[in-house]
Amino acid sequence: MASKIPVVVLAATGSVGQRFVQLLDQHPWFEVVALTASERSEGKTYQEACNWLLSTPMPDWARSMPVLPTHPTGIQAKIAFSALPASSAKDIEPEFARAGMAVCSNAAAYRREPDVPILLPEINAEHIHLIPAQRKNRGWDGFITTNPNCSSTGMTIALRPILDQFGVKRVFVTTLQAISGAGYPGVASMDILDNVVPYIGGEEEKIEWEPRKMLGKVQGDQIALADFRVSAQVNRVPVVDGHLVCLSMELEKKTSPDEVIQALRAYQLPELCQGLPSAPQPPIVVMDEPNRPQPRLDRMRGDGMTTTVGRVRVDPLLDIKMVVLSHNTIRGAAGGSLMNAELLVKTGFVK
Amino acid sequence: MASKIPVVVLAATGSVGQRFVQLLDQHPWFEVVALTASERSEGKTYQEACNWLLSTPMPDWARSMPVLPTHPTGIQAKIAFSALPASSAKDIEPEFARAGMAVCSNAAAYRREPDVPILLPEINAEHIHLIPAQRKNRGWDGFITTNPNCSSTGMTIALRPILDQFGVKRVFVTTLQAISGAGYPGVASMDILDNVVPYIGGEEEKIEWEPRKMLGKVQGDQIALADFRVSAQVNRVPVVDGHLVCLSMELEKKTSPDEVIQALRAYQLPELCQGLPSAPQPPIVVMDEPNRPQPRLDRMRGDGMTTTVGRVRVDPLLDIKMVVLSHNTIRGAAGGSLMNAELLVKTGFVK
Amino acid sequence: MASKIPVVVLAATGSVGQRFVQLLDQHPWFEVVALTASERSEGKTYQEACNWLLSTPMPDWARSMPVLPTHPTGIQAKIAFSALPASSAKDIEPEFARAGMAVCSNAAAYRREPDVPILLPEINAEHIHLIPAQRKNRGWDGFITTNPNCSSTGMTIALRPILDQFGVKRVFVTTLQAISGAGYPGVASMDILDNVVPYIGGEEEKIEWEPRKMLGKVQGDQIALADFRVSAQVNRVPVVDGHLVCLSMELEKKTSPDEVIQALRAYQLPELCQGLPSAPQPPIVVMDEPNRPQPRLDRMRGDGMTTTVGRVRVDPLLDIKMVVLSHNTIRGAAGGSLMNAELLVKTGFVK
Amino acid sequence: MASKIPVVVLAATGSVGQRFVQLLDQHPWFEVVALTASERSEGKTYQEACNWLLSTPMPDWARSMPVLPTHPTGIQAKIAFSALPASSAKDIEPEFARAGMAVCSNAAAYRREPDVPILLPEINAEHIHLIPAQRKNRGWDGFITTNPNCSSTGMTIALRPILDQFGVKRVFVTTLQAISGAGYPGVASMDILDNVVPYIGGEEEKIEWEPRKMLGKVQGDQIALADFRVSAQVNRVPVVDGHLVCLSMELEKKTSPDEVIQALRAYQLPELCQGLPSAPQPPIVVMDEPNRPQPRLDRMRGDGMTTTVGRVRVDPLLDIKMVVLSHNTIRGAAGGSLMNAELLVKTGFVK
Repeated sequence: MASKIPVVVLAATGSVGQRFVQLLDQHPWFEVVALTASERSEGKTYQEACNWLLSTPMPDWARSMPVLPTHPTGIQAKIAFSALPASSAKDIEPEFARAGMAVCSNAAAYRREPDVPILLPEINAEHIHLIPAQRKNRGWDGFITTNPNCSSTGMTIALRPILDQFGVKRVFVTTLQAISGAGYPGVASMDILDNVVPYIGGEEEKIEWEPRKMLGKVQGDQIALADFRVSAQVNRVPVVDGHLVCLSMELEKKTSPDEVIQALRAYQLPELCQGLPSAPQPPIVVMDEPNRPQPRLDRMRGDGMTTTVGRVRVDPLLDIKMVVLSHNTIRGAAGGSLMNAELLVKTGFVK
Repeated sequence: MASKIPVVVLAATGSVGQRFVQLLDQHPWFEVVALTASERSEGKTYQEACNWLLSTPMPDWARSMPVLPTHPTGIQAKIAFSALPASSAKDIEPEFARAGMAVCSNAAAYRREPDVPILLPEINAEHIHLIPAQRKNRGWDGFITTNPNCSSTGMTIALRPILDQFGVKRVFVTTLQAISGAGYPGVASMDILDNVVPYIGGEEEKIEWEPRKMLGKVQGDQIALADFRVSAQVNRVPVVDGHLVCLSMELEKKTSPDEVIQALRAYQLPELCQGLPSAPQPPIVVMDEPNRPQPRLDRMRGDGMTTTVGRVRVDPLLDIKMVVLSHNTIRGAAGGSLMNAELLVKTGFVK
Repeated sequence: MASKIPVVVLAATGSVGQRFVQLLDQHPWFEVVALTASERSEGKTYQEACNWLLSTPMPDWARSMPVLPTHPTGIQAKIAFSALPASSAKDIEPEFARAGMAVCSNAAAYRREPDVPILLPEINAEHIHLIPAQRKNRGWDGFITTNPNCSSTGMTIALRPILDQFGVKRVFVTTLQAISGAGYPGVASMDILDNVVPYIGGEEEKIEWEPRKMLGKVQGDQIALADFRVSAQVNRVPVVDGHLVCLSMELEKKTSPDEVIQALRAYQLPELCQGLPSAPQPPIVVMDEPNRPQPRLDRMRGDGMTTTVGRVRVDPLLDIKMVVLSHNTIRGAAGGSLMNAELLVKTGFVK
Repeated sequence: MASKIPVVVLAATGSVGQRFVQLLDQHPWFEVVALTASERSEGKTYQEACNWLLSTPMPDWARSMPVLPTHPTGIQAKIAFSALPASSAKDIEPEFARAGMAVCSNAAAYRREPDVPILLPEINAEHIHLIPAQRKNRGWDGFITTNPNCSSTGMTIALRPILDQFGVKRVFVTTLQAISGAGYPGVASMDILDNVVPYIGGEEEKIEWEPRKMLGKVQGDQIALADFRVSAQVNRVPVVDGHLVCLSMELEKKTSPDEVIQALRAYQLPELCQGLPSAPQPPIVVMDEPNRPQPRLDRMRGDGMTTTVGRVRVDPLLDIKMVVLSHNTIRGAAGGSLMNAELLVKTGFVK
């Protein structure tokens, strides 16, 4: 790559925006040319506008960058990484798509649109084939792709090889989700210290639907939803990063924990993902220790991009129980959209 | 009651033992006449032997009490509250039963014995009718009753009215359990700060079996296990006290969340439990707020004896989902055995 | 007391307001006749307006009470407990004082006024003698009293007997403050989980000044500041309730840790405080264990009103080091103003 | 360096031992040839013997290494990194020194010996000149160097430029120390969740003495203790890694916060430390934000080797107050001894 591809981060001062800035630092393919935020930050540098909350220092190049309004005018980027909240993403992301950019979004606003892919390159890279139809339908030069809800991410990746080899009929999911999933200031400490909150608004609905789209098949211009059903119960727990989910699965074909472990371990990155800088290698790690994965110890596997599985065992009611861990602000948010962008470059949707 | 009934606390210096001492302070029916501990503590007063970890001061009467070896000789008590670990309970509890005492035990050692009841007076007080057979079988003057595993407690109480009115076929359980459930020193802080551990040895097996016994029917000298099945996934979370469990239930009879809530709210203490000092009134509280119950806010309902339920809603796969909270070291341990002892007094098994 | 004294809680829906409501439940002398909040809550009941965050249920009498605007018109109360933020307290509290009420305030707005006492009845009950001058100066029928900043509370109480017997010249203070001190939502969980924040805006200035006023002597219409100096460093720590402070003290008169302990233990409630329902008895407890007091274990001593001291030892640079713990939202906020009100009743300033 | 220097890690399975293994992975100068542990682990591989608790996976080369008894026989290493507890270090470290190895120890056992340096290469690299005398005194082929107590580390580094430029007379220190400082299992979660423990046995004595030795001058065969005095109060807080200390300093020469900040920022690694792989560059970072440093956000600066300072301001009683943060298991333990070993190589004490 002779020169780097110019990119912009939308809503760069929030917690997911900061992760984009962190992960884009010294990225081999991309160069950040603009950072945007809400009107309050107008006229400030990124350092002035941003209450940086990550444990690596703010990159030097970002410090003095002016924070721009979140509008495409004057922004010479080919990719827009969107950390916008769903409410404003609805109107703003199309403006960037219309202006010719590939919008790689963490927002939920367009995930349910039939012509917008929810990408997890490790398992459904071929969903990029919705993009031409999306452009045509909407008359955009650019387009929108999304990453899924952070709590759907790890479980959906882990379900891919299981679905492929054994078929999946029903999945019970209980999540234990980190506080960083709620952004900043997000969860009040008075609500979560020495406590658990068994509720996150709208989250269960996303977990019950998004995996079916992501694991669905491209049929013409649309995705045929995968034919299994999910029941989700979500909980917020006092953990900084890393969403853990407990799964019970009913499968089409009877199998054993060993065969499931073998399928998970044998799963390879698809051809389309080979060589993406952010792609975890292998995509799924299965741990043998009976008490793993654990958020604090395992979330940073593969620089936060690996899906970690453990406790694969027989379910006395259905077939298989297991536990899946995924880093919610890396694999489940900014890192996910970053890998999506890499896929778009490799497949020529961004040139 | 003219004079109080003399009781002893076995293994009184550990965390459950301390709860017994705390809850027995100024109890209207019982008076502690002896405290025991392992050999290490021999010759010490309770204050010297005990690293008191509760947030109310050690009762004055307990401070200067000598710590005795855990052997019945010379202990003039009618009830022995046992906070022994399962391993030593196996041998020691029968010695106290043989010596004529009613052993009210928190240990798992005898829970699977067909002639030993696992009591939750709110829902299965009639299981005391196993006691005569137990005495006869074993040739003891006294007998053993147990309280269930702390994570089974709340869910089993909440299942009673649901089983009675709608029938229960299958239950998926995911627990979020407090650190105090592991005793002291128990869970290392390095294992649980900013973390979740998706494993507790032996716990899932207990949750999958104990509720079936507790909700079973007395048939002659035994309990016929209730005819439903449980699948459990357990997690340790950084919460001091209060076990939260997420349930998905398949019922015999189709129903609605409103009817389930009504059944839970209508549930009354059985006749046999009326007037027990530790019995929560009502036994089950259903909260309306979408994000409750929460351990820190709700565990002390009814002085830690109430079972709190929330988020009763339709399960897209089975019938009903809900969340149950119970204080693990009060209702789920010492408080449970204390109420068991009260039941034994009321029903004349202890005179 | 034939009938109870009618009181109002200002800003009753916030975290300190909730504590007032909790502590006033079944108070032997006071009856809540009105609850106020900001305009957003107008027209709602207290239950509708309030996100109740305490671990005892909202009192039944409060649930259906209408939330009124924070204005004295139509409020038939003799005492106004103020949980207002300092900014609005500045203007609103005088309105209630002008309307004839005794304002017992938790806000900092008037603490530096020479004619407004910062009361800690255990140690400076006689500061109520500023009240007549305050009324005269300001032409109010009522008046304002305040409780101190929560982090000044415990240390100032503990300094009283030391100052009286040994004289105090200099005090170094480092605080470890609970999250509840910042109200709700207050401290973001992302800021404090697995973390410490060595800064709380404006707090060090309060700790360096307020104790000198509280330990000062009434001279005519004013307080002569006590003649010692304080240096403070504050920290926020992941603790729900209970502020711990580490003190190093230079004294006028050389002494030993034992003499200091003796002075602290001998300290008695002054005559004026005898019989106040909220007065802790004794006011100060000194613990012998080398690792106490600790927030979780000791904050609820005396229903949260006791000042707990420990680790009294020689300071190799000055004279004495020690650790003091005080419950920040009970003794250090709502409970403090409640005891102030009780003192005003006993001394006839409220009739 | 043609080939790497062979090293052994003593007590490699504990928490500091694991840090040594982690930090030695792919070290440019050193190669681990042996790992030792207590007798319990004999005959096991490192993977079998070790409950790995770090958030990067165990290095592959370490997994299958046999765990040896902690005895020099048969160990062909030039450097022994010691993570032994002080009690066993007393006897075992001399055996390795006698066998010709340079022992780089984290233990306290030899820190008070006049001929054993407590090294912080950034500030007292010249203390290596004690080594020849130590060898001669004790008749060893090898020798012992130590790193200081983890809570002394950051503050002593930060004091160096202040002492040099302004002189230091007295220092008040209050620490907020992470749980990892107590090893594993170390602090029970029941002791620290929602809590603070104002006591760590023996720690205050170390903080009051070690900095004086480390900042002292080599005079002949000994160190002349620096001529200032320290008073310490220590606290354990619920933070995983990173010790924060609050300092109040009395200086010889009056100065301003700005001058102190300038001195800290201007401080350079001494000549002897240039080029050491683990040396942080710069050694000290001063943050401008009023609420920094914070453990979670700043402990990993310079891969955990940087000393971070903030809140430099006027002390109303003495001269200057400030806050210092240092990673306790990296800079304050394993990373410290690793840098000590690098210094020994550079200066020819290890060849």
